Amino acid sequence: MTINDLLKQTGEWLRGTGPNSDIIISSRIRLARNLNKIPFSRWANKKQTEAVLEAVKTPVLESICMKNNLFLKIADLDNIDKQLLLERHLVSRELIVGSDNKAVAISGNEAISVMINEEDHLRIQVIESGFNLSDVWKIIDALDDELSKKLDFAFSSDWGYLTACPTNTGTGMRGSVMLHLPALVLSKQINKVLAAILKIGLAARGFYGEGTEAIGNFFQISNQVTLGHSEEELIDNLERIIRQVVESEAQARESLMNKNAEMVKDRIWRAYGTLKSAYIITSNESIELLSAVRLGVDLGIMKGIDRLFLNDLLITTQPAHLQKVEGKALSAAERDVKRATLIKEKLK
Amino acid sequence: MTINDLLKQTGEWLRGTGPNSDIIISSRIRLARNLNKIPFSRWANKKQTEAVLEAVKTPVLESICMKNNLFLKIADLDNIDKQLLLERHLVSRELIVGSDNKAVAISGNEAISVMINEEDHLRIQVIESGFNLSDVWKIIDALDDELSKKLDFAFSSDWGYLTACPTNTGTGMRGSVMLHLPALVLSKQINKVLAAILKIGLAARGFYGEGTEAIGNFFQISNQVTLGHSEEELIDNLERIIRQVVESEAQARESLMNKNAEMVKDRIWRAYGTLKSAYIITSNESIELLSAVRLGVDLGIMKGIDRLFLNDLLITTQPAHLQKVEGKALSAAERDVKRATLIKEKLK
Repeated sequence: MTINDLLKQTGEWLRGTGPNSDIIISSRIRLARNLNKIPFSRWANKKQTEAVLEAVKTPVLESICMKNNLFLKIADLDNIDKQLLLERHLVSRELIVGSDNKAVAISGNEAISVMINEEDHLRIQVIESGFNLSDVWKIIDALDDELSKKLDFAFSSDWGYLTACPTNTGTGMRGSVMLHLPALVLSKQINKVLAAILKIGLAARGFYGEGTEAIGNFFQISNQVTLGHSEEELIDNLERIIRQVVESEAQARESLMNKNAEMVKDRIWRAYGTLKSAYIITSNESIELLSAVRLGVDLGIMKGIDRLFLNDLLITTQPAHLQKVEGKALSAAERDVKRATLIKEKLK
Repeated sequence: MTINDLLKQTGEWLRGTGPNSDIIISSRIRLARNLNKIPFSRWANKKQTEAVLEAVKTPVLESICMKNNLFLKIADLDNIDKQLLLERHLVSRELIVGSDNKAVAISGNEAISVMINEEDHLRIQVIESGFNLSDVWKIIDALDDELSKKLDFAFSSDWGYLTACPTNTGTGMRGSVMLHLPALVLSKQINKVLAAILKIGLAARGFYGEGTEAIGNFFQISNQVTLGHSEEELIDNLERIIRQVVESEAQARESLMNKNAEMVKDRIWRAYGTLKSAYIITSNESIELLSAVRLGVDLGIMKGIDRLFLNDLLITTQPAHLQKVEGKALSAAERDVKRATLIKEKLK
């Protein structure tokens, strides 16, 4: 598999299926792991990061779920390729800045990615579409077990897994769920919901994770605490809260359709009309418009379009994807025209 | 002919043809005339306005250009019918407020309308599509001559035609041209142009005449002075100024297409997309969107749509037209949905 093969497929997490997939895009868990007796990546020298890469590469690639994988050294990638991986949520920003012995291993369906020499020696991520945290946990737990047999992970009986950033120490686990909450936004209840989430120790972030703004009514909700609880407890807690948010969104949608059906239909159809007609569309606007159309699909207002199709558009209209398909770097203005053209063609 | 027949046709002034019809919608001249020895309508009693109506009705309806006409007493019309005439620019607001012996005679193609017992006893209007003031003058002058032979108009050798409002005394003539100036608006030059027009004693008004705002980049430019010059001089002067405005708009369009073609295309296509998709459209928004699409047609960006079609939509989506077709009064919210539905159907 090569990086170009990614363009021919839609990542596992974007299938648009799975439990509650009208509100929940995807469920993700990542584990932070470090090798014993080697400094964390940021403080390690070149030899040490090389030793990490050497040590983990084979175990990772040979693990059961990593058949038909894609292994990429960051140093071998140009900026567009790096951005492409970021747009597909397969790497973090941290990984693609600098390159010393940084690498990523990605499973064929993009459900699993293992980052090497990110903040931690290993960042293992499993992501699936829909509300599937327990399923995701089973997969990542099995992969972690498999790797643990071959690798000596830094672990303290007092602290649990040791990590570069103390906030990850303990289970080293972060679970996060990407939700689509247009009705809570439209009915102006979203800030109340997000405030409640923060209060109980969870975090809410935008479409591209930490430090990004909410666009297109997409929100990632994740646990902050990893210490002092078992992985199962943390997941249970996260699942419970998410279920409440899903319920709030469902109620907000029902209420909108009862009270403001025409306004909602108007928004949805206008978004569709703009996607089908505009000559220039920015990346953020396309996400906003696709969000409105997705709501239309979820409410049964728009027929003949499915979530997979919309998710695919969401990703393939991102800057690096557009440039990759075009085979060259494009200015922002050029991209905005290409994006509009691509969307029009796909919606035909 | 009945008022309902109007719905089956498009008014003469909306044909979208004639000189400079890419920028000029229509050319209009109206004459104010009063019968000798009867007070102006506003100060006349019922008997006197009745006498006016009796005196002018036959001469007007028998005039050469009024074959196949529509004669309507305002008292016989419901509110929707009154509004319908206003939307078609066949009557003034002044005429349809109150009803004592007020009436209007309209030629079959809607090019001529003669209002009776408006501010003046007679308000004669001739309107044609495109930049055609001299043609319009010939028609209205002939009609005026014809009526003068049968009616005794109030005329002073010192002052010319006497009128209810002194601003009309003299020729009693107002020429006005409806222009579509989207490029001057987009390039923010319109205020400079309008200020210059005011300075030289002309007036600039919105789509629905005196006291209405500019919407959809439509502007009516007309003479203010009617005293102290011959009709031909007034028309020559108006024509000369309009020709300059047309030239400015043409240059602004060229410059926009040279410097901002993509922005312009984007605006035009988005407007089209919204018209084709929206579920709710207000009257003002529909005028704005149709203005953008018209610019697209005029710039050759949009094919397969002509001005007649757009003009027809401009008028048939107005509140009274929608209600007339529906056969009942509709709330503003109901109209906005009907309007969007009608536009979608017509654009299919």
